Amino acid sequence: MTAGRFITFEGIDGSGKSTQARLLADALRAEGRDVVLTREPGGSPGADEIRRLVLEGDPDRWSAETEILLFTAARRDHLERLIEPSLAAGRTVICDRFADSTRMYQGLSRGNLRDKVDKLHALMIGREPDLTLLIDMDPATGLARARGRQGHEERFEDFGLDLQTRMRDGFLALAAEFPARVRVIDGNAPVDTVAAAVRDTLAEALA
Amino acid sequence: MTAGRFITFEGIDGSGKSTQARLLADALRAEGRDVVLTREPGGSPGADEIRRLVLEGDPDRWSAETEILLFTAARRDHLERLIEPSLAAGRTVICDRFADSTRMYQGLSRGNLRDKVDKLHALMIGREPDLTLLIDMDPATGLARARGRQGHEERFEDFGLDLQTRMRDGFLALAAEFPARVRVIDGNAPVDTVAAAVRDTLAEALA
Repeated sequence: MTAGRFITFEGIDGSGKSTQARLLADALRAEGRDVVLTREPGGSPGADEIRRLVLEGDPDRWSAETEILLFTAARRDHLERLIEPSLAAGRTVICDRFADSTRMYQGLSRGNLRDKVDKLHALMIGREPDLTLLIDMDPATGLARARGRQGHEERFEDFGLDLQTRMRDGFLALAAEFPARVRVIDGNAPVDTVAAAVRDTLAEALA
Repeated sequence: MTAGRFITFEGIDGSGKSTQARLLADALRAEGRDVVLTREPGGSPGADEIRRLVLEGDPDRWSAETEILLFTAARRDHLERLIEPSLAAGRTVICDRFADSTRMYQGLSRGNLRDKVDKLHALMIGREPDLTLLIDMDPATGLARARGRQGHEERFEDFGLDLQTRMRDGFLALAAEFPARVRVIDGNAPVDTVAAAVRDTLAEALA
């Protein structure tokens, strides 16, 4: 049995990456492939408990450093309990967010911790996806979509667009940094067009 | 204001280190010193929540690697929220267990992770105590004392003594590795004799 492929989706909030991860899982299953669709933070029972610890309560409850340790603990559990065993069994693993999100949200957004995030990843995770599909999206459109899901919060408006823009620029810089692994997909097109581009990119990249 | 001193107590289960930490705090307070007595794992509200996550439930719930990430997250929170601010305010901080316990229990006992534990500490904690008092204790006596507190568990007896012996040897090796920081105190003597040795060692070491 050959090892399965590990595919991650990344992008700003409202980019449509979760929808695209699900559509790709459906398409591969329709071809008869054995697919595990998962997401971070969380993805295994232990990682989901750590996720609740990080995301519930006061947003300033944890420092950026403590937060990257907790997210890395959750990722390690998810990797050991679900991702690695699934890949070893020849299954395709599709994960909505993975280490690149930590590189962006903890590495860029909260302080300037990218170097610590990278060293921690090398020390305790050490696994990169075979392919990362970055769903690129206009920051204002992504913000409006994300707000449509969660209810509008006026007071975060300016901060929200600024953060979305910085995260989008950061993700595009990451794609330039790892061109063999990270492929950029235009997420501004209709959902079926984006899904077709995802499938074409996957076929080409993992040929 | 000068920065306070950071003093840790280490040793095997049943070594009497928690009692000695408390007695030293009492003695220093009687001299008019401003003392913070704390303990790990835990020691701050966030770290206590992580402690519960690690210690509750099935003992095999977390891998050794995930466990060191969770303990390091708890330590980072404890350091930022309690230890560093207290030291900066000139207070003496006495902590029952700190990074040396992770070096022993996760570094030696579960797998062979000492190198990962050390690198993780350097990356995310980077703080050593000014003085570590290692309360050395005969492993069988320590085991009997620890069991007296928790109720006897026959089935763990052999494993218990073997683990206690390995941990004791490991702690003594640690004292040899860091002779300037870690001082060995004979914990087999009566409690007041041990307490006097602790105070003498502190006075000499931090003179």
